[in-house]
Amino acid sequence: MKKKEPAITREDVVRTLVGQRRPAVCPAGSAFAPSNIALCKYWGKRDEELNLPVTSSLSIALENLGSEITLKPCTKWDRISLNGKLLASDTTFVQRATAFLDLFRPAPDFFFDMRAKNSIPTAAGLASSASGFAALTLALNELFGWKLNRRALSILARLGSGSACRSLYGGFVEWHAGAARNGMDSYAEPLDAVWPDLRLGLLLLSEKEKPIGSRHAMQQTRATSPLYAAWPAQVERDLAALKTAIRNRDFAALGRTAEANALAMHATMIAARPAILYWLPSSLAAMRKIHQIREEGVKVFFTMDAGPNLKLLFLRKEQALLTAAFPELRVVTPFGR
Amino acid sequence: MKKKEPAITREDVVRTLVGQRRPAVCPAGSAFAPSNIALCKYWGKRDEELNLPVTSSLSIALENLGSEITLKPCTKWDRISLNGKLLASDTTFVQRATAFLDLFRPAPDFFFDMRAKNSIPTAAGLASSASGFAALTLALNELFGWKLNRRALSILARLGSGSACRSLYGGFVEWHAGAARNGMDSYAEPLDAVWPDLRLGLLLLSEKEKPIGSRHAMQQTRATSPLYAAWPAQVERDLAALKTAIRNRDFAALGRTAEANALAMHATMIAARPAILYWLPSSLAAMRKIHQIREEGVKVFFTMDAGPNLKLLFLRKEQALLTAAFPELRVVTPFGR
Repeated sequence: MKKKEPAITREDVVRTLVGQRRPAVCPAGSAFAPSNIALCKYWGKRDEELNLPVTSSLSIALENLGSEITLKPCTKWDRISLNGKLLASDTTFVQRATAFLDLFRPAPDFFFDMRAKNSIPTAAGLASSASGFAALTLALNELFGWKLNRRALSILARLGSGSACRSLYGGFVEWHAGAARNGMDSYAEPLDAVWPDLRLGLLLLSEKEKPIGSRHAMQQTRATSPLYAAWPAQVERDLAALKTAIRNRDFAALGRTAEANALAMHATMIAARPAILYWLPSSLAAMRKIHQIREEGVKVFFTMDAGPNLKLLFLRKEQALLTAAFPELRVVTPFGR
Repeated sequence: MKKKEPAITREDVVRTLVGQRRPAVCPAGSAFAPSNIALCKYWGKRDEELNLPVTSSLSIALENLGSEITLKPCTKWDRISLNGKLLASDTTFVQRATAFLDLFRPAPDFFFDMRAKNSIPTAAGLASSASGFAALTLALNELFGWKLNRRALSILARLGSGSACRSLYGGFVEWHAGAARNGMDSYAEPLDAVWPDLRLGLLLLSEKEKPIGSRHAMQQTRATSPLYAAWPAQVERDLAALKTAIRNRDFAALGRTAEANALAMHATMIAARPAILYWLPSSLAAMRKIHQIREEGVKVFFTMDAGPNLKLLFLRKEQALLTAAFPELRVVTPFGR
């Protein structure tokens, strides 16, 4: 029998990238990171400790929607606020942030004053944890003067939240699944592609916190959904199709593949035991409306994450029509206006 | 290279079971067959001509809800009526019935007067074609004096609509997938189990015809859904679990497995490309309401077929509570009151 190698911890990864813990070199670190929406989804971890994914994934950054974080040293305890409001220590937000900050404290009595501003609703399937941990990593890099490159920062952000590794960049971003046990080859990189006509439309149907977080939902799907086994191979095909569509600026192929990929991900959840149902009746009504508009000849597609909201994909020329059809649509221009 | 054997047709099967075509021996044939709701679904054919399934399945008959058919010889042309209304020859109903009747005409100028009465909505995912073809087969057996046993009749009914082979019996019914190319081992049989406390509740959310028929939906799922590959093995496990649950009168196991099996079937469709979405916003609202009632401790589950309607599963003692929660619920007592 082969001897099992000891598990690699997040602390090991931090030590490899950052070295010994050192005191802050700046009075403060401050950074913004955009949220990102996956066109080819990240769904399932091969390593829970290091947030290593089963598959690669591909996302698009949400321009100026995301998280801004300012980080300063603080005496006595961590002081964490979100959108100007001080948060209690028993909130999920504080617990996840604190667990991440623990990896970097120069001493046990070193505390952080962390002020986060989200321009998107928290925990409603709009990837606020992705932008949050990416911005936090960037702020730490500044505060401690690490001067790390983006690849290293992407790996560190991943330790906070898997999809955060994609929020280090604008535009199209690919997260390479990698194969190494320590995850040093599991990081994100931007694609060399600019598509100024591309539009994303956020259709917020509920800002309530999700009934089940995506970390837990992924675990449950991977462990119990009989259909999950077929997912990784499909992701590989979808990822290749999306990259080809981006290279060719083939919007129909991009939209069709992204929508099918999102539906396949939700299908793996619906088949989990017990089922994970993020869809609300209003989600289904919106899907049907999009399908109907598409049947009328308008190229519009959607994607969905671990939540009830839809994200529409369309081109600039359809924007007026779609904001008329969905008056509450919030349009994002990933490559500027 | 092995020479391909010639395809077996429905005519071949009829010849094997019924022999040469003979004139009617009775002035009329008349029969009732119940509709059936699968607890373990039939989803995917291995042979389109003979309606041979990829997997076995298990259903429960809907007592007195089903189809009643009276068949008489008729001069000049087929005269087909449904619920007292003469149907035009270009309707799906007439075309499917005529194609089936063609298999049995003693002469090309032999026509049928077929009067069908459905006590359930047609083509709304309530298995009206199952009861219809089962009743039609029974009526033909009487009209032509075949005196066939139930197994042979089950095989003939299957040629009209796969799930019709299960509508030859009351109570729990298993359809054996079989393996033979001619389908002579693909028939239904009743389980030896009576469960008087079991209740089914029909929740009709739409009586509109389905946007896509189940035959086509099955084909599309099998051909394009990346998740379908995992379905047959899961059906095998679910079928075994359901039979154990029935044997042990373990209602929670029965309901849990039936609901998960139905959701897995819908998940394979949601992942088809393009997606097949039978769910309406009201379907999802009902699912969520059932999950909420269940969280409050009431053992109620649902199953769904190729349509938007839900079929609730519960025990007699919960009936009052559930008809209060769903005033439009139509309760069926599969084993009598």
